[in-house]
Amino acid sequence: MPPKQRMKFRCISCFSEYPATEMRYTCNCGNLLEVAIDFDAIGRTAAQWKKHFEKGKSKAAFLRYKDFLLPDLPDEKVISLDEGDTPLYKTTKNVQEYFGIKNLLLKHEGMNPTLSFKDRGMVAGVSWANHLGMKMVACASTGDTSASMAAYAAHSGKMKSLVLLPEGKISFEQLSQPIASGSITLGLRTDFDGCMKTVQQLTKKHNIYLLNSMNSIRIEGQKAIGIETLHQLNWKVPDWFVIPVGNAGNISALGKAIRELYELGVIKKKLQALKQHLQTRFMRVTKTIGLH
Amino acid sequence: MPPKQRMKFRCISCFSEYPATEMRYTCNCGNLLEVAIDFDAIGRTAAQWKKHFEKGKSKAAFLRYKDFLLPDLPDEKVISLDEGDTPLYKTTKNVQEYFGIKNLLLKHEGMNPTLSFKDRGMVAGVSWANHLGMKMVACASTGDTSASMAAYAAHSGKMKSLVLLPEGKISFEQLSQPIASGSITLGLRTDFDGCMKTVQQLTKKHNIYLLNSMNSIRIEGQKAIGIETLHQLNWKVPDWFVIPVGNAGNISALGKAIRELYELGVIKKKLQALKQHLQTRFMRVTKTIGLH
Repeated sequence: MPPKQRMKFRCISCFSEYPATEMRYTCNCGNLLEVAIDFDAIGRTAAQWKKHFEKGKSKAAFLRYKDFLLPDLPDEKVISLDEGDTPLYKTTKNVQEYFGIKNLLLKHEGMNPTLSFKDRGMVAGVSWANHLGMKMVACASTGDTSASMAAYAAHSGKMKSLVLLPEGKISFEQLSQPIASGSITLGLRTDFDGCMKTVQQLTKKHNIYLLNSMNSIRIEGQKAIGIETLHQLNWKVPDWFVIPVGNAGNISALGKAIRELYELGVIKKKLQALKQHLQTRFMRVTKTIGLH
Repeated sequence: MPPKQRMKFRCISCFSEYPATEMRYTCNCGNLLEVAIDFDAIGRTAAQWKKHFEKGKSKAAFLRYKDFLLPDLPDEKVISLDEGDTPLYKTTKNVQEYFGIKNLLLKHEGMNPTLSFKDRGMVAGVSWANHLGMKMVACASTGDTSASMAAYAAHSGKMKSLVLLPEGKISFEQLSQPIASGSITLGLRTDFDGCMKTVQQLTKKHNIYLLNSMNSIRIEGQKAIGIETLHQLNWKVPDWFVIPVGNAGNISALGKAIRELYELGVIKKKLQALKQHLQTRFMRVTKTIGLH
């Protein structure tokens, strides 16, 4: 009997569906895909989900929440560097007064193996590549993404990794991380978009798994930041999540996690609106999700 | 009834003793001090110690091991950023073959709040300063020490911190960390030794607590790296610990932890020799402790 399929890809625009085991990053219509999970097939009640997460407390975050992130991924395919379980700090009066917010918590995602939240997505992405039997993973990146991908590929002990970056445009520190992990690190005479185009062509033509953030498996991994935070808050949903935004992968992940946890009945607060809000005071650019 | 005193300072050379609550960093003879703990007064058997550590698993590492590190520090005085509990990685075949060692584990001390092992000592040092009622802490530093001290002082919400560093000789990244934590960060026209001399004079003259590594309370905090590793190994002692060495604070801490755990009966392997061994292949300089 083949294992049950509880995950599939679904286009975020035209809702076309594809098997999640297909090496595919976009819909035929050109839009992005997201992972649709058949939670009914898993069949846990809200209380059972909470109990399941609670029981997994001794496990690394990705394994604890795996059924909520990538339920079709077998445990033995997971390549983990013990990412996650980052602290949720209470802030001091000084910080609260600076922002004018009394009840403000800070999640320290720098306390991950390669020192950024990218590890949350890469444990998912590289493990999924391992599940698909891939021998090589690749990305275009100028920093944390390549550092993370390279570390997980190296830790697998069997996957090679390839990083394309714009020559002369990244710092020594950014360059040192993929190289230290043994990644094939190539500087191209182009900008980031040029590298992105090339890596897409390469992964289309060859049997190489693409791990840029258009890969929706990575988004599933990043959902762990949201569920872990809510678990730390004993499933009490805060009024606001404020997160920095680049290409909006993290905010997509957080929004998806909150929507799904609400549908599962694990959290009670209804998500009524997604608001955009610019915070220029402390962080360069942030987007926030408002919950009422 | 005053609280029991189970800690005192003892000179590593002439064995003179001083109260641990004294703001003192060296012996009258000029040598360094170490913290001597009266484990008999705590009165746990080896089995009881193990049970105590096991029961503390849900706590942050410093609190879990506090009775072994700073037993006289009240829990409510602890300023913690959830440091420690860093992963102990199994290595891949590639890494094992590179070093020619089959059973090689790596402890990732970068996964600490300010991204270095210094947090292990600073949670102890800043908490102790808090216990002593200090309003200001200081150090001379060109990097991780100041980043760590500044973060813990800021997190206390009541202590100011002062960093002295050689002007023009440290990187932007190193400078940014204490400044971001609100530390008074002064560049002096001298080298590190000049900064060290000045900070010693300042802390002697004013009511400021010195947190350079000559402070033996910090060494107690760093013992947590050793005990946590042995706990992760279920108290099985490895043949070798290989650690990078600067001013030998970390190796002192590890050696002290191993000696004390052996005396308490928590570990069974006898420490017969301290050997020095230079590894030039991968790390710049390392010292190792050999256990037979």
